[in-house]
Amino acid sequence: MSGRPASHGDLARLLAVARGDEPADLVIRGARVFSAFTREWLTGDVAVVDGAIAGIGDYAGREALDVPGRYLVPGFIDAHMHIESSKLLVDEFARLVLPFGTTAVIADPHEIANVLGTDGVHWLLDACEGLPLDVYFMASSCVPASSFESPRRALTTGDLEGLLRRRRVIGLAEMMNFPGVIDGDDAELAKVRLADHVDGHAPGVLGKRLNAYAAAGIHSDHEASTLEEGRERLRAGMWLLIREASAARNLRALVPLAREYGPSRIAFCTDDREPEHIAADGHVNSIVRDAVALGVPAEDALVMATLGPALYHGLDRLGAIAPGYQADLLVLPDLETFLPEHVLKAGRPVGEIAAVPVPEWVRHTVRVGEIAPDAYRIPWCGGAARVIGLIPGQIATAALVEEPTVANGVAVADPARDLAKIAVLERHLGTGRVGLGFVHGFGLRRGAFAGTFAHDAHNLIVVGVDDVAMARAVDRLVELGGGLVVADGESIAAELPLPVAGLLSDRPLPDVLAASEAINAAVRALGVGFPHPFQVLAFLALSVIPSLKITDRGLVDVDRFEFVPLAV
Amino acid sequence: MSGRPASHGDLARLLAVARGDEPADLVIRGARVFSAFTREWLTGDVAVVDGAIAGIGDYAGREALDVPGRYLVPGFIDAHMHIESSKLLVDEFARLVLPFGTTAVIADPHEIANVLGTDGVHWLLDACEGLPLDVYFMASSCVPASSFESPRRALTTGDLEGLLRRRRVIGLAEMMNFPGVIDGDDAELAKVRLADHVDGHAPGVLGKRLNAYAAAGIHSDHEASTLEEGRERLRAGMWLLIREASAARNLRALVPLAREYGPSRIAFCTDDREPEHIAADGHVNSIVRDAVALGVPAEDALVMATLGPALYHGLDRLGAIAPGYQADLLVLPDLETFLPEHVLKAGRPVGEIAAVPVPEWVRHTVRVGEIAPDAYRIPWCGGAARVIGLIPGQIATAALVEEPTVANGVAVADPARDLAKIAVLERHLGTGRVGLGFVHGFGLRRGAFAGTFAHDAHNLIVVGVDDVAMARAVDRLVELGGGLVVADGESIAAELPLPVAGLLSDRPLPDVLAASEAINAAVRALGVGFPHPFQVLAFLALSVIPSLKITDRGLVDVDRFEFVPLAV
Repeated sequence: MSGRPASHGDLARLLAVARGDEPADLVIRGARVFSAFTREWLTGDVAVVDGAIAGIGDYAGREALDVPGRYLVPGFIDAHMHIESSKLLVDEFARLVLPFGTTAVIADPHEIANVLGTDGVHWLLDACEGLPLDVYFMASSCVPASSFESPRRALTTGDLEGLLRRRRVIGLAEMMNFPGVIDGDDAELAKVRLADHVDGHAPGVLGKRLNAYAAAGIHSDHEASTLEEGRERLRAGMWLLIREASAARNLRALVPLAREYGPSRIAFCTDDREPEHIAADGHVNSIVRDAVALGVPAEDALVMATLGPALYHGLDRLGAIAPGYQADLLVLPDLETFLPEHVLKAGRPVGEIAAVPVPEWVRHTVRVGEIAPDAYRIPWCGGAARVIGLIPGQIATAALVEEPTVANGVAVADPARDLAKIAVLERHLGTGRVGLGFVHGFGLRRGAFAGTFAHDAHNLIVVGVDDVAMARAVDRLVELGGGLVVADGESIAAELPLPVAGLLSDRPLPDVLAASEAINAAVRALGVGFPHPFQVLAFLALSVIPSLKITDRGLVDVDRFEFVPLAV
Repeated sequence: MSGRPASHGDLARLLAVARGDEPADLVIRGARVFSAFTREWLTGDVAVVDGAIAGIGDYAGREALDVPGRYLVPGFIDAHMHIESSKLLVDEFARLVLPFGTTAVIADPHEIANVLGTDGVHWLLDACEGLPLDVYFMASSCVPASSFESPRRALTTGDLEGLLRRRRVIGLAEMMNFPGVIDGDDAELAKVRLADHVDGHAPGVLGKRLNAYAAAGIHSDHEASTLEEGRERLRAGMWLLIREASAARNLRALVPLAREYGPSRIAFCTDDREPEHIAADGHVNSIVRDAVALGVPAEDALVMATLGPALYHGLDRLGAIAPGYQADLLVLPDLETFLPEHVLKAGRPVGEIAAVPVPEWVRHTVRVGEIAPDAYRIPWCGGAARVIGLIPGQIATAALVEEPTVANGVAVADPARDLAKIAVLERHLGTGRVGLGFVHGFGLRRGAFAGTFAHDAHNLIVVGVDDVAMARAVDRLVELGGGLVVADGESIAAELPLPVAGLLSDRPLPDVLAASEAINAAVRALGVGFPHPFQVLAFLALSVIPSLKITDRGLVDVDRFEFVPLAV
């Protein structure tokens, strides 16, 4: 599927090198060579020709890489992720993760699909062509994630059919409308039946409802966060994708399953990682490192980052060091840090990566309707309100019920009670639709912060304790064409412009990191004490993660899967 | 791929049963339920609806099967086999193997393809439709097995392309011309490139040549017979298919690999099993039983007979007991005999199996040219001859060199030296072509025996120590339209008619077993002391198994992969 020799001539040459009748392009000598199949360390030269591995044995080559005593392992594969979470264009994303040893990712482009439809997906896929990083896509199954959300337009079954015809689109992405699937909703079943390879997303689903989800043909889940969830998924025949995202971290909870059952049918994934998280801590390699630190044998951890994801996704030339496999190879100094000394992509060191051109049409996506001066005002006649309750370290929220603080017939934010106002503004079509609510747990003492990156519809989300600051932040996002901003009263404290679809920067990583640091510092200055506040904010609009979320159409009770009014 | 609900309605019903909202068709209660994914025994009811498993849990159903304390396991899958070796039509083959728990086979129909071309393959595939046995085909890649053999016609790359379009043809069958593949022969590489899923056949190939074979995209081998061969195949990324055929038995030699590496990437197969072997000893279940007796944990042995073959072949609804999987289920009384008490195929007990109609055109395939009275005479001027040396219990032969016994200028069979004459007569087109040679090791003291079942071209093969008996046996095979016969002088001692393509009986199993017993007894009476003499004979024409073989075109040195003359 991937890396298969393109022609008879290439294949004949590969075989000639394998036989030892012709010299390899490159021979890697002296390493302990990892067999992902037998979980052994083999000795022998690794012969590489035309980007493929010809064999392990006694080989000669035009070039040699001597790495005595080092560990040679296959390139890491991210089993499920969204490139857009890195805020980087794909070329810059590749520059960031390749040094950490990630040589392939399986991406669900549903962020860009919500903003730019299939046009955006095709553009992103085309932009990945020729990168020294293999980017496979899953066709985004849930745009919108649920009927509670407002993308620019919904993707139809026909759209998915078209996407699935593309060579690097290998299946259907996470079926996030898990209640719809489980309950046998016609539209959801029609999607599932489009592909043999379907990713899942079913947080908290257990027992008979999990049986139904698996029976529908869903083959994985990356949302398990407890041992019980993980165990039930494996027993139901689903692959367990252990996720270590920036916000949601499940490795520690699930790692006992890898120790108990071995690495078969388990793979690692990053799902959503912020650029600063990757820059500071690494990518898939960091999950391998942490798994080993948690007691998983290094060989098993490696399988979950290499052959496992390749097998799960049917990428039959990736994930192992063996004849015919693509020569995506990492030289590791040890089995603790998993930080490669050398990264070979299709047999070559990663060199310069050309910049991806950004067309004009992907830069003009923020269209917010007329915002009335009192847009964030919440008239209140007394009584309790539904409040989104943050849960530290999780993207799930609690559904709280609180009496709001009322002043002059208006429910207001109350920093003393850690109650902020939150709003989602439709930003694709300029309808002027606004959803309003309250959130507890940010610790915001003044000002507001806002972004156009808000799962999954990526409408404009703003949280604040000050209507003026909320309005200022929104205005600035419109001016920027998207991004993340922090407002303190009338002034913008910091900003990270994301002009590409309102999701991605067009700047190099250092600029993005600097701006990201600035906005996080600015939010800290407003009182927020935990890391990744913008990511936490971005997930508050995701209507398929329990329990209480908000969209441009109002509050969503995810457990009951219905809109609920602000007033109880 | 297999057993997927055919319609929305079916899928919706499956999910309703999984959720517990509708009763199942059948609930199996009280069993210890095998999870092939986690290698555990689970407790719970197994709910079955419309032939599929809805879930394991607390379920109600219209019918119940109470099997307290019994072991419930998935149906066994034969990872590689040739139905024709059973000498039975497919309906009778299904009647034979289903009670042993085999519910799916992956068959290479290359015996019938050699005789009847793609027409024969399509006929056989059609004949399997509707059987309560899932028969998947691999497209026969090597018809002829090598250029040394003479089938009725060669299958072309175009023929294979056509076969690969059929729904139940899931890949390319064993690439037996392994020297051609390894050496990069254009025609062989063109075949390999037709499919992503390609079976191998590479006896004795090791080291760099194995690297080349694997690099070509060959994903399995069932010919490994030593630990070293098995280990190298696993390390090269190939699946190790452990074969227990009637003649070639590799389990004992390879089972340490299953103990060392676990069951991942290993699957069991029967390849070629005689009907009496199956009737007496079982089918895939006998391999599981023997593996456990040899020290493999029962759970691991079960995986190699269920989920392993399904994963290898990409049959994503077979091989496990989990939601959405086809309800091919065996109730086992213990984990020693592996002889099922109940066999459920797609959720139902196996009932009557309709007889497969046999059209006229598959019954007229034996066409031998004019046979001169001295056809088996070997004029000899002295000197040594190449002699095929049987190796007990193997289908490989030794290439011996012996001075033949000469009488009146003619090299003759010599029972005292255990030297018999052997001939292969082209039998498809009536060309009159005959290959002649000597064979050592049958122990034949008088008479001759012959058959139209002779791998892979299935020309007519005859071995004897008496030219009269050889001629009589050949004449009788022509009269029968194919089969296996034993001649003692001018008289036919016993016979098993195989009128369908000269390969298959049209009789029920008991008739075939009785005739088979009779011919084997008759051959024993002629002096042959080992079991399965006709199978040993049938492999002497297979020009891709080392070392010395014979076809209608003469002796083949398989190691050098060339014709060699009888005289040294």
